This record gives sequence, C-alpha cells and structure tokens, in this order.
Amino acid sequence: MSEVHTEADILFTGISQLVSPPPGLQRGAAMRAINVIPEAAMLVRGGVVAWVGPARSAPAAAHIHDLGGAAVVPGLIDPHTHAVWAGDRLSDFEARVSGVAYEDILARGGGIRRTMQATAAASTADLVRLARPRLLALQASGATTTEVKSGYGLDFAAELRMLEAVRTLQSEFALVPTLLIHVPPTSGRAEYVRAVCEELIPQVAAAGLAAAVDVFCEAEAFNVAETRTILEAARRAGLPFKLHADQFQTLGGTELACDLGALSVDHLEVSGPTQIAALAASQTVATLLPGVTLHLGLPAAPGRRLIDAGAAVAVGTDLNPGSSPVYSTQLALALAVRLNGLTPAEALSACTVNAASALGLQGRGALAPGQRADFLVLNSSDWRDVAYTLGISPVGSVYRGGLNISISRGAMP
Amino acid sequence: MSEVHTEADILFTGISQLVSPPPGLQRGAAMRAINVIPEAAMLVRGGVVAWVGPARSAPAAAHIHDLGGAAVVPGLIDPHTHAVWAGDRLSDFEARVSGVAYEDILARGGGIRRTMQATAAASTADLVRLARPRLLALQASGATTTEVKSGYGLDFAAELRMLEAVRTLQSEFALVPTLLIHVPPTSGRAEYVRAVCEELIPQVAAAGLAAAVDVFCEAEAFNVAETRTILEAARRAGLPFKLHADQFQTLGGTELACDLGALSVDHLEVSGPTQIAALAASQTVATLLPGVTLHLGLPAAPGRRLIDAGAAVAVGTDLNPGSSPVYSTQLALALAVRLNGLTPAEALSACTVNAASALGLQGRGALAPGQRADFLVLNSSDWRDVAYTLGISPVGSVYRGGLNISISRGAMP
Ligand SMILES: [Zn+2]
Ligand SMILES: [Zn+2]
Repeated sequence: MSEVHTEADILFTGISQLVSPPPGLQRGAAMRAINVIPEAAMLVRGGVVAWVGPARSAPAAAHIHDLGGAAVVPGLIDPHTHAVWAGDRLSDFEARVSGVAYEDILARGGGIRRTMQATAAASTADLVRLARPRLLALQASGATTTEVKSGYGLDFAAELRMLEAVRTLQSEFALVPTLLIHVPPTSGRAEYVRAVCEELIPQVAAAGLAAAVDVFCEAEAFNVAETRTILEAARRAGLPFKLHADQFQTLGGTELACDLGALSVDHLEVSGPTQIAALAASQTVATLLPGVTLHLGLPAAPGRRLIDAGAAVAVGTDLNPGSSPVYSTQLALALAVRLNGLTPAEALSACTVNAASALGLQGRGALAPGQRADFLVLNSSDWRDVAYTLGISPVGSVYRGGLNISISRGAMP
Repeated sequence: MSEVHTEADILFTGISQLVSPPPGLQRGAAMRAINVIPEAAMLVRGGVVAWVGPARSAPAAAHIHDLGGAAVVPGLIDPHTHAVWAGDRLSDFEARVSGVAYEDILARGGGIRRTMQATAAASTADLVRLARPRLLALQASGATTTEVKSGYGLDFAAELRMLEAVRTLQSEFALVPTLLIHVPPTSGRAEYVRAVCEELIPQVAAAGLAAAVDVFCEAEAFNVAETRTILEAARRAGLPFKLHADQFQTLGGTELACDLGALSVDHLEVSGPTQIAALAASQTVATLLPGVTLHLGLPAAPGRRLIDAGAAVAVGTDLNPGSSPVYSTQLALALAVRLNGLTPAEALSACTVNAASALGLQGRGALAPGQRADFLVLNSSDWRDVAYTLGISPVGSVYRGGLNISISRGAMP
C-alpha cells in the first residue's frame, strides 16, 4: 500500500491536443509522423507515462489534474550547449557588428580566448553560480534535459572544474555532461593530443564526469587525424563520442564520425552531398544549431536536404557567449523552421526524440507508455504555437518526471 | 505644497550605465552617438525627467530609489504593429513551411483574408480582449509606447471597430492608433478609394480615432496613383501619413512618401539606391521590420546602407499573425543588429527617438530633461545586453512616466 501512495497515479485531463513523435530515433519522413490525439488524457505513475489516449477512454486514477484545454508536447531536450562559462563577450559582439574584422577582435584580446581566460580564473562555485540562471532559462523555455559541454578550460584542471560544476548542477537539473576537446594549444599539439587521450579522457571516464567526448574538428581546431586519435581514446575509455564539424569547412570529420559510430555530428553549416549521404546512411544524428546562423549571419545547415535524404536531425541552442547567446530551446526549435527548412512536426521530433538519441538517452523524448513523464503544457490549445511563436514563450508549465518544475522566468542570467 | 506631494521628486540611483540617444530624430552616423553615463542617477519629477548625470553630482530629492547596479535605457517605442486581430494563421504557417505555394494557401481560404474574416466577425469587446495580452507582451519586452494599425476590416464598420478597440486599450497602454488602408476590394477599386477619401478618413479624423493614415502601396495592394489620392485626403483631413512600401517591388511609393513629407516609410526590403537616396534626403523615417525577414525568409531591408547614406532608421516588430508573430520589441531590436546590419547603438536609437519621430511624437524616446520618464531597468549592468540577448528578456522592469508598470510575462497571448 505504501507503494500506491508514493507512486500514486495522476491522470492529466483537459488536454486539447496531446502531441508526440513515437519513441526512439526518427529519420527522414518519419520525423513528420507525429501523433496528435485531440481531447486527450495522460496517466502518469511514478514519474513515468503509463497511458495516453482519448479522454473518453481514460482509466481511473487516484488523482486528476485538469490542464484547462492546453496542448501538451514532450519536454524539449537540448543536445548541445556550452552553458558553463565566465566573463562576457559583449565587446566582441559590438565590435563584430560594427564591422571590426575577427583578426582585429582577436588582437584586442577578444574571441574564445577571452572566455577561456575568464573561465579558467573562476572557481567551481563561481561556475555553478554563473551557469544556474542560464539553465533555469533553458528549462523555463521547455528544456527538461540539457547537455552541457566543457571546453573553455585553459588546462585540464579548468576542464575538470567545468565538469564538476555540471555535476553539482545535476542535483537541480537533468543534465548530460560532455567532455569537449575544443581549442588546441598554440604549440605542442601532438603532446596535447597525447595527454588528452592518455590522461584527461581516462580520468574523466573513471570519475564518471562526462557521458560523452566531443571534438571540435575544424581548420582552426583539430584536424581529422587528431580527431580520430581522440575519438578512439574515447572508445577505449568506454565513452560514446560526437563532433563539432562542417561549421566552416568540410574536412572529413562528418564522414569519420559516421564511420566510427558517433552519437551525433553538430553544426553542418557547410555540409554538402557527401556529408549528407554519410549521415543519411548512418545511425549518427545530424544536430543543427540555428542560433549560430542567426547570431553570426553565417549559412544555415541544410536541414531540409538532410531530412529529405533520410537523415535523423536534431536541433540545439548551442548556448554560448560568442556564437549563440540563445537562452531558449523553444527559440532554437522555432528558428530551425525558419532557417533550416524544417516543418513544425519535424522540429518537434528534432528537439525531443532525436535530441535524446543524440545524447544516447532512451526512455525520454516521447509521450508514450514507459517514457519519463517530461512534458510541456503550452499557453495555447494548438501545439503548433511551440514552433510559431517568436519573442514570448509559448511554454506555460514544465513537468519533469510528472512534477511541475516551472518557475518564473523574470530574471535574465 | 500639494503640488510638491503629487509631483514629488524621485531620484533613481544605483544605475551602472544610463544610456540614451539625444532627444529628437537622429540620422546617419548620429544614430551611433548615444550618451553613456557610468555610475549615474536620474531625477524624475511629475513623470518627466528633470535631471540626469553622474551619481556623485546628483541633486537632493524627496525620494530615492536604488536600482541596484542595473543599466538603464529609454523605454522602447514600437512604431509598427497590427496587434488587433482575431483568429489565427497556424494552418497557413504550417502549410507554407511545408512547401505549399501561397496561391494554394489562398485557395484553401488562407492568407490575409482569413484574418479579415475573423476580425470582421469579432465585436469591439472581442478585439479588446484578444489584443490586450499581445500589448502586455510587447510592454513586458520593453515597449512603453506602441503603434497599432487598423487594416483587417472587411468594411468600414469593421475598421472603426478595430480603432475603437485601440481607443479602449489606451486607458491601459500608451498607444498610437493608425488608420491603415490595407487591402483593396476585388472589384470597384475606384469607388472604394473614393469612399476611403471622402467618408472613412474624414470620419476617423473627426472622431479622433487615428493619429495617422497608412497605405499599403504594393503590386498586390494599392498602386502609386491610388496611394497619392489617399495620402492627399489624409493631408486634407489634417492627419499625418505613412506607407507600407518596397516590401516586394519598388513601385515609387517610397519616393512619393518622401516627396509628400510622410512620417515614415515601412518595410523597404527591396529598396535600392534610388529609394535610399530619397529617404536620406528627406525627413521621412525608414522603418525596418526584421521580424518579417526572419519569419518569411525574405530579403532584409538595407539598414546599413540607409544609415550610411544618412537616413534616419527606426525598427518595429510588425506584430501580426501572417508575416511577423514577434511579440517582443526587444527581439525586433536584436534582430535589426543581426539581419539589417545595425550596431547596438544604432538599434537603440532606431527603437527610441527615431521610432518616436516615425509616430510624430516629441517629448519621449530619450532620457534627458523634459522627456517623459519612460525607461527600462535591464537585468544587466551592461546596456548592450538589450541588443545581444536572444531567447530571454534582458528587460527587468519597465517604467512609464516614472512609474513601474512591469508585470509577470508568464502568459502567452
Ligand atoms: Zn558548440
Ligand atoms: Zn505592417
């Protein structure tokens, strides 16, 4: 009987539309095949979805919670953020949009090194304090699970402090930590890669500080050979892996990642037919980051072509101070429709079940029996408002594991 | 003595930066010449700014209000919205982003006629109830003055109901109503234009229901000759006027508007050197609507070239259900930096003093003695966050006439 009390059934009623993709990775046209149940109800037991269907067929339950005619969608999953950082990049932003060349911004001490220096100077407690309001903003925007990367550490100790900050924040949020090998040293690259593979990755894996390893594979960062070395070290350490690739140049990182079975390849702004074909033929998720497109005015990743080729597409904010100051996972979803050519249904699949797959997560992202009861009650009776509305949140209440975790979103980080 | 009580001085302190353009229209490079006073204070008397300057030089005051180290900017002025409508355009949106041609959307009963039919079927009370949360959203995003157009009426009676709804809402918001001549009838155009000029405009002017007349001058709407006829009727009725022009084609509407002394020309997505030169040589404000660019994926208006040519640029949301579901004036400001090439300082001038000029308003838009004390307390010590931040509001508190009018922005319209 005590189990009945702690695991009491709650029947959510008054749902104008209960909308969800099927559980698991959806690729190509299947991304559009979402289920829309009008006049629905949902039974939650022990934080897990037990039943969904038309309200007229709803089972009996110990508790009933009427949602007043709102549309309900799965909680969003943000598969790509850099939410832990110190300092700001407002001067860099102002200079760039005023026409100052990136080399000159770097010469002024700007660019990513500015963030790395401020982050390296911060304690773990500082990083926790700075990241918390950002994660609250993402959560208020609809993210019930959020990935957070390291990568601004000037040295391994700073990388570990970033991951420790994420671990601390895991008591407040559902976070997925990723070790990001982001910026090569100005000298001693080979030694650095060796140390990453032989020291940092094994240490992080042993401490359970990261769920995956990510590498920034780009002309300015790590080349394909270095990337391969690092991904193989991740595999030896038992960690899944992913890449930042094809943001500025197609070096072959995407093909490598698909070949090695990466969870995802992220960015893809300059991906062409070869990279699209590789992603479509693999289990690797193609993760789009439209906030970067909007903020930097760079090309948009070919979301439409990826889906039409049969790839599985996810979408994330890429929240970071330099290239995507986007504090809303819902805005990332809405931007993917405008900038990457996704339909509202595809964008919903991208931000839920496919984002879960990009993080190696099962059991969340969909509203179906056995899935964690992470869901959003919209300020609308029509689910499409989650993709349509700009400049104000269409998300009313946020539920994780069947519990309302909404807070006021008055404050900015 | 009673005047001293009702008009008591309030000294706002704890202002990390008090930031404002000078009062009045700013054109060309002057749009960048904003004043930034660090560690500032501001004296407000009777709802009007009485003094601004460094905190160390602040005068004595009956009341002191410490803003805790926040940056303060003028309240934003949204010079272009269609915030009064009924019905929704979610099906049109879904169809368009799924690749359905606009002609097919029209054939399904979609497009602007869908909004016109729903609006014509609504009572004035319905329109008030529907518009209120939209205006609250704009206000929470920083708009202390908002323009609202008619234009969805199927007949003159419906147009008048739209303007009456705005008049009713003026008790809650600082609104500027505009009579928009938007959609020509499918037959009897000449008779319609005659009735607009001889009946509608004089009636609206006599009733004081609009502060200006606007015409949609476009191949699909009114041609230049019709536009001229309507603008001349506005002038006879004593009303200032403005245009929607150069959204899809350069018909000559912009040149006409500059020639006749219009307050503003709005849209300008396809304006070329001729139109830019006309605007730069006139007192007419060039109003950019970047929400349309984002939502429809159409070209961006040449904001950078307009300013470089010496024009005065303003920015608005164009909030409307078909082409700009942007419920945040701050987002419009932030988009103008990304999409139209404005600097943060230029965007601030565009959304304050120049937007005031676009509405024919004096005495607001700047934080300087004699201006209405409309201002925003940011959730940041750095004013540039108002242009930088995406997906969450950088606006903490909104003051109009020296009074805090902030409300929770939890609910979506
Ligand atoms: Zn990234
Ligand atoms: Zn308009």
